[in-house]
Amino acid sequence: MSSKKIVTITRQYASGGREIGMKLAEKIGAEFFDKKLLEEAAKTSGIHQSHFEENDEKRTGSFLYLLSTTYGQNGVPFDDTLFFAQLNAIQKIASEKSCVIIGRCADYALRDFDHVAHILISAPIEWRIKRAVEVYGIDAKKAPDYVKRIDKQRIAYYNYYTDKRWGIPQNYHICLDSSALGIDGTVDLLKDFLDGFYA
Amino acid sequence: MSSKKIVTITRQYASGGREIGMKLAEKIGAEFFDKKLLEEAAKTSGIHQSHFEENDEKRTGSFLYLLSTTYGQNGVPFDDTLFFAQLNAIQKIASEKSCVIIGRCADYALRDFDHVAHILISAPIEWRIKRAVEVYGIDAKKAPDYVKRIDKQRIAYYNYYTDKRWGIPQNYHICLDSSALGIDGTVDLLKDFLDGFYA
Repeated sequence: MSSKKIVTITRQYASGGREIGMKLAEKIGAEFFDKKLLEEAAKTSGIHQSHFEENDEKRTGSFLYLLSTTYGQNGVPFDDTLFFAQLNAIQKIASEKSCVIIGRCADYALRDFDHVAHILISAPIEWRIKRAVEVYGIDAKKAPDYVKRIDKQRIAYYNYYTDKRWGIPQNYHICLDSSALGIDGTVDLLKDFLDGFYA
Repeated sequence: MSSKKIVTITRQYASGGREIGMKLAEKIGAEFFDKKLLEEAAKTSGIHQSHFEENDEKRTGSFLYLLSTTYGQNGVPFDDTLFFAQLNAIQKIASEKSCVIIGRCADYALRDFDHVAHILISAPIEWRIKRAVEVYGIDAKKAPDYVKRIDKQRIAYYNYYTDKRWGIPQNYHICLDSSALGIDGTVDLLKDFLDGFYA
């Protein structure tokens, strides 16, 4: 039994993963990290937060970008430096306190930590497009492409930086389609899951 | 709201999917179909049950086998005939009564049915190997290869007969690692999930 509760949430864009994570964190008394993780990474690394924000969960695969990549100390590309700074921040947070961390390859960053619950939130594309328009105010005509693009970006980022493939159910303790029970129903079920997981 | 409860369970070998399905069926008052599905398929098709048993969730990819495949009426290979007979039996059962169906591409067979809950049960390979030895009496030395082989057979069968890829979380409403809560804990959580799903 562990007194600390560490939860990672991998999510498809507009699946409600962020909102579910926020509500779940409150229910289990854990600190919630979504964009705030970038703040922590900036703090612990000394690199300005704007760099983390510009490169948040995306890679540019363009050849020109690769040519122009800034190499830092030891010849490490700058975006790799950002990734490893984030990884360190995630490990630091998880070793200090109960937390719910959204995205940012947190499941990979904490792969050698015990008692971490790994969750994936998905939902049918139509449901997510509707939610992108209603909740995030994305233009209805552009939403289908936008949703797919963000998904692709995140998957490419994850697959590049980890030695795993994004979204394989075996990588998670529980995967839920958030449209099945809705946001609050999903939160309640995940709370029950975590009660069992940390029993 | 639907009064009938139709549940499909896709499972990795020795993950406990069968036992979970059996207990869940009892809890929700649904009929349980694992091997019994083959009996139903034999009954509705008139083809002897032994053929379904010999070909249960596996294909032989061998070239010699393909050459020797028996072609039935309309030039349809015999193993395709068996698959479609099973598909018909699954659809017949689901249109008649509450049921929990294990494997046999039931999620695909019922893709156009409303109010069907699709579940995937997985577990880490070490946990499943241990369970294969303890529960199914598989020889401890042979178990690692055996578990992987059955998984591969089922995946190849599924991917061949459906237009989907096995084990993509987006194809299921909930995926659970049965080692996280154990068999009974998983059954309880799935019961809660179905209560919400069918509310």
